[in-house]
Amino acid sequence: MGRRWVMAARPRGALKRSDLALQEVEAPALQEGEAAIRNIYLSIDPTTRLWMSDIDQHATPMALGEPVRSFVWGQVSRSRHRRLREGDLVFGLGAWEDVSIVRGATVIPERYALPLRAHASVLGLTGLTAYFGLLEVGRPVSGETVVTSAAAGAVGSVAAQIARLVGCRSVGIAGGAAKTARLLSDYRLDAAVDRKGDLNAELAHACPDGVDVCFENVAGPVLDAVLAHINPAARIVLCGMIAGYERDAWPANMLRPLLMKRARIEGVLISSFLDRRQEGVSQLAAWVHAGDLVWRVDVMPGLDNAPAALQRVLAGENDGKQLVQLAPDPWD
Amino acid sequence: MGRRWVMAARPRGALKRSDLALQEVEAPALQEGEAAIRNIYLSIDPTTRLWMSDIDQHATPMALGEPVRSFVWGQVSRSRHRRLREGDLVFGLGAWEDVSIVRGATVIPERYALPLRAHASVLGLTGLTAYFGLLEVGRPVSGETVVTSAAAGAVGSVAAQIARLVGCRSVGIAGGAAKTARLLSDYRLDAAVDRKGDLNAELAHACPDGVDVCFENVAGPVLDAVLAHINPAARIVLCGMIAGYERDAWPANMLRPLLMKRARIEGVLISSFLDRRQEGVSQLAAWVHAGDLVWRVDVMPGLDNAPAALQRVLAGENDGKQLVQLAPDPWD
Repeated sequence: MGRRWVMAARPRGALKRSDLALQEVEAPALQEGEAAIRNIYLSIDPTTRLWMSDIDQHATPMALGEPVRSFVWGQVSRSRHRRLREGDLVFGLGAWEDVSIVRGATVIPERYALPLRAHASVLGLTGLTAYFGLLEVGRPVSGETVVTSAAAGAVGSVAAQIARLVGCRSVGIAGGAAKTARLLSDYRLDAAVDRKGDLNAELAHACPDGVDVCFENVAGPVLDAVLAHINPAARIVLCGMIAGYERDAWPANMLRPLLMKRARIEGVLISSFLDRRQEGVSQLAAWVHAGDLVWRVDVMPGLDNAPAALQRVLAGENDGKQLVQLAPDPWD
Repeated sequence: MGRRWVMAARPRGALKRSDLALQEVEAPALQEGEAAIRNIYLSIDPTTRLWMSDIDQHATPMALGEPVRSFVWGQVSRSRHRRLREGDLVFGLGAWEDVSIVRGATVIPERYALPLRAHASVLGLTGLTAYFGLLEVGRPVSGETVVTSAAAGAVGSVAAQIARLVGCRSVGIAGGAAKTARLLSDYRLDAAVDRKGDLNAELAHACPDGVDVCFENVAGPVLDAVLAHINPAARIVLCGMIAGYERDAWPANMLRPLLMKRARIEGVLISSFLDRRQEGVSQLAAWVHAGDLVWRVDVMPGLDNAPAALQRVLAGENDGKQLVQLAPDPWD
């Protein structure tokens, strides 16, 4: 016998206690390939709220009546799985329940002289998300300024400290005086910004050289404020959008696919590539001469027509590159 | 004597002819370091409309009374510049005017057996933006699907053809039957989508394997529609936001800093990095043991408390990683 939480109603807005129900369940017989994990720690993550929503996301949304999905850390109590043995300390995808029946789990290979709860946090998916997200996606360079939102949170507190460890100016954003104080005293960040204060002014003060990397957990107005301070070629690591998880109609819905598909959107200005102009021109000319690349210009004659030509472009009426011609083409 | 267009009023909404005024000007005496270019082609670009707006952007907005800034191609007619000689064919940043006085310009080094207007389009900044933007920022791989918006436009038509040339399925979006027909007949794209039709359904049909790279010139609803079809690890090259250039309050203002600062936003899911878990865990553990990385868990006891723990996380009340503990920590 054990207990588990199931989703009784799909939450709308803030999660209510009545959206969930605690059930008594009998321990099922194990099928071949399954193991039972007696759970020690359940991971409680903002993502869980996202799984309760039926919007498009990277995982399958939870169904009504389904146990509340979460990562769990525990000990194998029974096993018909060929790699999992009774007594193994493992982590895997289970649910909010005393015992999870799984078809696979990861045996924690090394203790590192730390309690299991360290493996469920700083050495677990939380810490790894901060580590790879900041270093591999954000690619901070020593001396740059890194801003982390929800910097007192599980992932943010690790990411913001790693930013400091790799030699960056690490600025954390958190809500309220108690949390911002912790950012300085406990996590030893270079500056702390209160998102409940004058976010824009505090960011300007905390980031005198602008923002090079943003490790973003919140999105919404917090991200908007940071974007007002970014430097050229800044990198925004979109790790979470907590601001949107309890809204059914997320305002900046563009971000959702970027996160769920771990996609990238990047602004391009040709000024970044002008030192390679010759390479580009010669390749383009070669394609043109091979007949592979068709080029079109839409030429209006006379300086008088310049405003009309621009109106034409803005209305999308041009066919190819719009030019205004003032004199004969010398290479015609 | 010559003529030039100046900005007489700052446009609000669609550009009006009365926002601009044509002036007669006398040819000024050249200062040391200056050259006069007799303009042959003026570049007419959506960006010009952006420069007329006083919003934050990568260039300095145009001032009232300022000549309408544009790239120009022409011939040096007088010179007190040490590298520019009378008769040189050059391009540079000038204005909508018969003669531009410049302190610098680029001599076009090689003709490539093409008219000057090819240098003002496919071999100019237009073609180079498509070339480097698609290949260096989008990094398309042969066999992937590339969607280009404003694909009948100056930059888009080059980008969409390059996508085909590097072995991708190249899908173009344009407005109306005439333009979409051109995408297939002239630019030989694999599929054409009419943004004035059922954009979502047409995209689904044109991109049966989803979208790997989007070369985005329009933004707004067109980008939203493409994002509904992106594959994991998709790349969106944000090259333009034509949909926003005539609006003074751009709805998805998040994109504006991304473009103006050629910044990158990228979603991260830890699943992409799990094959490197061991590397991450051992580095994190080393930092913990060196005292460089503080880790905090916020532990609530008892399965009963799981919903309250999640509410706590969603309210931002947790201090560090939130766990629910069901049994003693075996490594405590």
